[in-house]
Amino acid sequence: MSNAKPVGVFDSGVGGLTVVKEMLAAVPNEHIVYFGDTARVPYGTKSARVVREFALQDAQILLKHDVKMIVVACHTATSMAMDVLTERFDLPIIGVVEPGIKAALEATKNGKVGVIGTRSTISSGTYPKLLAEANSEIEVFPQACPLFVPLAEEGWLDHDITKQVAHIYLGSFQEYQVDTIILGCTHYPLLKPLLNQVLGPSITLIDSAEETAKAVQLMLSKHALLADSSQRARHRYLVSDIPHQFRQIGEQFLGQQLESLSQVDIDSLIQTV
Amino acid sequence: MSNAKPVGVFDSGVGGLTVVKEMLAAVPNEHIVYFGDTARVPYGTKSARVVREFALQDAQILLKHDVKMIVVACHTATSMAMDVLTERFDLPIIGVVEPGIKAALEATKNGKVGVIGTRSTISSGTYPKLLAEANSEIEVFPQACPLFVPLAEEGWLDHDITKQVAHIYLGSFQEYQVDTIILGCTHYPLLKPLLNQVLGPSITLIDSAEETAKAVQLMLSKHALLADSSQRARHRYLVSDIPHQFRQIGEQFLGQQLESLSQVDIDSLIQTV
Repeated sequence: MSNAKPVGVFDSGVGGLTVVKEMLAAVPNEHIVYFGDTARVPYGTKSARVVREFALQDAQILLKHDVKMIVVACHTATSMAMDVLTERFDLPIIGVVEPGIKAALEATKNGKVGVIGTRSTISSGTYPKLLAEANSEIEVFPQACPLFVPLAEEGWLDHDITKQVAHIYLGSFQEYQVDTIILGCTHYPLLKPLLNQVLGPSITLIDSAEETAKAVQLMLSKHALLADSSQRARHRYLVSDIPHQFRQIGEQFLGQQLESLSQVDIDSLIQTV
Repeated sequence: MSNAKPVGVFDSGVGGLTVVKEMLAAVPNEHIVYFGDTARVPYGTKSARVVREFALQDAQILLKHDVKMIVVACHTATSMAMDVLTERFDLPIIGVVEPGIKAALEATKNGKVGVIGTRSTISSGTYPKLLAEANSEIEVFPQACPLFVPLAEEGWLDHDITKQVAHIYLGSFQEYQVDTIILGCTHYPLLKPLLNQVLGPSITLIDSAEETAKAVQLMLSKHALLADSSQRARHRYLVSDIPHQFRQIGEQFLGQQLESLSQVDIDSLIQTV
């Protein structure tokens, strides 16, 4: 039965575990195989060409595990590689961009939507393009926030430095009277309390991880691929590197223990090309 | 004539260009082939196993260009892979760690030496080990500074945020009465003016890039490999990715234009394994 197959999820590193965390709640019976490309993380500072190449390799690793669906739990890979992935592979594939866009369009009252992400995600222009396609009257305010990922990985989730950096990056959103901001990076849900504090109650934050998990449920249902409700889910976490501090950071992102964690041999990763 | 062959230099990304900058002054007649592994940068957050694998591949790319010597212009790769590199390849290889250690031992008056670097460089324990081997009476104070690289790449070289982060990371050096600090990361020379300001005149900063360039001159001379003084040097810069902003950052590191810049195909990189 294909319904008993796992859902595959990949990201450039640990960030995608925020999406898995939400999937554990939204589709609790699904087996999940997660691949984090920690040997080559981050993707957010790299070119479209390289990100596309890496994303194809990541998907191939998941396909070796006979997944029934792929979740691209990485904003950079979604922004840059969604087209080549759907063209190359014949199974349902979902990214983290469209669910956030849909939620932002529902949330905004004044049509002024901010988007924050890595430099690559923002310079790809994917969010403004897709928002404009959905509703040409929406005004989009994109802002790259390159220091948020290293600050989150340093564990400075509630640090005064992080607040100051947030004020620098996000200061103009209030001025532009933006009422909705899409968190366009899987690391950012960890910073949500701090960002809410900096931005105040008049701005709604859209958590793409949460929205993506809901979209996964819908897509599985639409393709009649939902696991049997009696299935006891098993989860596997694969990474291309297990550096110092990985488990600690990963468990913070996932919100629970990383039980079955193993390393994909870097040579076998390379041979999938 | 082997003397007319180029000197190979590699780093995980653009950081090693600070070493090349010093080499342009120290060995002005040498042809240089630089490889920056920008598709997989940074190495500083990765495990020893992966860094060793990448370093071997990087060296092989340089060997294809018939280099007479290899400079490992990356502290993480030097700390973790110097042994496998010298074991595998039969040509002079020099890293960025030993030259800084030598200079620090000459500079310190009270025997209290600080070392700053990425998390991987610091957790490798290479600096304390080599300093103790050279002089067992030296007291070493290592400190990881993970945010310095992203701050330098954000261009915040003289920013108030960077100063505050420096105070947090470096505050205890004054307390310990350290009189010498080794800059154990190729990005850090860019932060030297700010670090001098934060640390004050009682602490001497050792610039590993400068010291490594001097050591390259000595090693070429020792092996009778110095280029003819009439040679007009040519420099080639190879990278595994050319992301947005790369040229701008690279030229800031190199202190001049990146004239001959080309991308090594990611597939050919992979096939060198």
